[in-house]
Amino acid sequence: MRSVAEYQEILNNFLADIKIPTEPKNLYEPISYILSIGGKRMRPILTLMGAEIFDCDYKKAFHAATAVELFHNFSLIHDDIMDDAPLRRGHQTVHEKWNTNTGILSGDALLILAYQYFENYEPHIFRALAKIFSKTALEVCEGQQLDIDFEQRNDVAIDDYILMIKYKTAVLVAAALKMGAVVAETSDKNADLIYDFGLNLGIAFQLQDDYLDAFGDPLTFGKQVGGDIIENKKTFLYLKALELSDAETKKQLIALFNSNPENVTEKIETVKQHFTATKAVLHTQELIETYTLKAFKTLEDLDVPASKKQGLIDFGNMLMKRNV
Amino acid sequence: MRSVAEYQEILNNFLADIKIPTEPKNLYEPISYILSIGGKRMRPILTLMGAEIFDCDYKKAFHAATAVELFHNFSLIHDDIMDDAPLRRGHQTVHEKWNTNTGILSGDALLILAYQYFENYEPHIFRALAKIFSKTALEVCEGQQLDIDFEQRNDVAIDDYILMIKYKTAVLVAAALKMGAVVAETSDKNADLIYDFGLNLGIAFQLQDDYLDAFGDPLTFGKQVGGDIIENKKTFLYLKALELSDAETKKQLIALFNSNPENVTEKIETVKQHFTATKAVLHTQELIETYTLKAFKTLEDLDVPASKKQGLIDFGNMLMKRNV
Repeated sequence: MRSVAEYQEILNNFLADIKIPTEPKNLYEPISYILSIGGKRMRPILTLMGAEIFDCDYKKAFHAATAVELFHNFSLIHDDIMDDAPLRRGHQTVHEKWNTNTGILSGDALLILAYQYFENYEPHIFRALAKIFSKTALEVCEGQQLDIDFEQRNDVAIDDYILMIKYKTAVLVAAALKMGAVVAETSDKNADLIYDFGLNLGIAFQLQDDYLDAFGDPLTFGKQVGGDIIENKKTFLYLKALELSDAETKKQLIALFNSNPENVTEKIETVKQHFTATKAVLHTQELIETYTLKAFKTLEDLDVPASKKQGLIDFGNMLMKRNV
Repeated sequence: MRSVAEYQEILNNFLADIKIPTEPKNLYEPISYILSIGGKRMRPILTLMGAEIFDCDYKKAFHAATAVELFHNFSLIHDDIMDDAPLRRGHQTVHEKWNTNTGILSGDALLILAYQYFENYEPHIFRALAKIFSKTALEVCEGQQLDIDFEQRNDVAIDDYILMIKYKTAVLVAAALKMGAVVAETSDKNADLIYDFGLNLGIAFQLQDDYLDAFGDPLTFGKQVGGDIIENKKTFLYLKALELSDAETKKQLIALFNSNPENVTEKIETVKQHFTATKAVLHTQELIETYTLKAFKTLEDLDVPASKKQGLIDFGNMLMKRNV
């Protein structure tokens, strides 16, 4: 298997060459913009890996990988509007650089462009890919809705939260891998196993993302550090801290997560201290480990040589050690 | 051929039975809402007609017709946000009844649901339908972008305007018919001819819509009468009135279309008087006739019995006589 850095380079070269229409400028410029400001390309890499692990030339999976990356960027543009986020990958978000209407419409166009990439496959592959894609895309919308709903609720349970990140993040990681498997025309059993691997890895990935959102390095993180705290997002960190707090701290945390102060610095610092003091940080790290190991366990039944599995394990370990 | 009223009833019965998911409520309730407040169902009727005219049971085209209607409603939800429109079909728009974020996300889900309806067809039909659909959907986004761009421009030519409504409205009318033809597996030539018929009819339809937006009956029109005037939309009515105005009237019209007064009643009345006095209204009615006849002309080469063509002609004539 190739290294992640190799895949990243292959993919960035391919993405640099894809043709995004140019007119009307106000529709397509924001699309070229969001694709140009980078990103880890983690999801499309998984599509290439998903094909290669089943002995298929990764080049055959390029179009499916592109669809996955376009969809991911569509969801970022629309989510950033809904979350009123100023920064993405260290740059202005689309609705900040242009306006909300541009963000809505360019996002729509990007979702449609994603579907068009499946047209490069024969009918039976096209249909299988579009089917997984639509199911996943709808689940991602459901996850985003749950995320929004949770902001208004004070009774979010840890299980609710895990379900939300499963839909909002993990299903796309899982589907990205499975779409590679579909291009490779492997067995249904293999395709389902690699999906399950992705699902668990995706949950671990989002927990890690939540951790970095609070404790990441502002210089490398790309998004506003403490953004989830500002937005009163009930992440695992928050829910676990609540569970492990004494009555007084619990009251304080709840009050903080129902406040929207002008000056956010103090709120962020106080909340982070609680996250650390209650050992919620430690529990988050443990849970990341649990889901990562669960993902690796799924690979045992996968009908491919051990060397191929190792590539997926390396990728998983790399993801969990990242700081961006 | 069936009458439009018959098709409408068939289609409303079918649409009443389609399963929209229910949870999360805040995601799917707005979708059920917009589908329940009616509409003329003109586009999906064309899909059924497009199948039946080529000797295919209209029932086979139900799923494609549903995709067309769902797409149309997706575009209404997002366009109403962008246009800040309070009313749709005589009811509150989705973003007014809920909020902008709900409008964005429910719209996204509706677009994805539309694609899922193609999964009811075998791979080669699925691929053909999704391909026309994606191309058309992207063109509709481009049309909407041009529409937005035109609001800020004072140099919109009549040809620019016709191009804009071609993309924003006519291509979906054309594609709706062609998708019926694809389900019927008719010849490419027939499918292309029926597309051209729809394209010209769609332009006539939008010109009629623009006329009704200014001169329709507030009791039956469903949208805010004068909405285009309030929004400073450079419709054919406006562009033709400018062309036919003396220097003084021209100056006044341009000033009015660069204003956003609190009280809109006077602006609407003054503009409408100009539209009538300059004979722009008359020219609009003539252009509607021209595009309708151009549509009918395309039918001459269509390889189907005259009785079938008559159904499409009746439909076209009905559309042009509507007052809603």
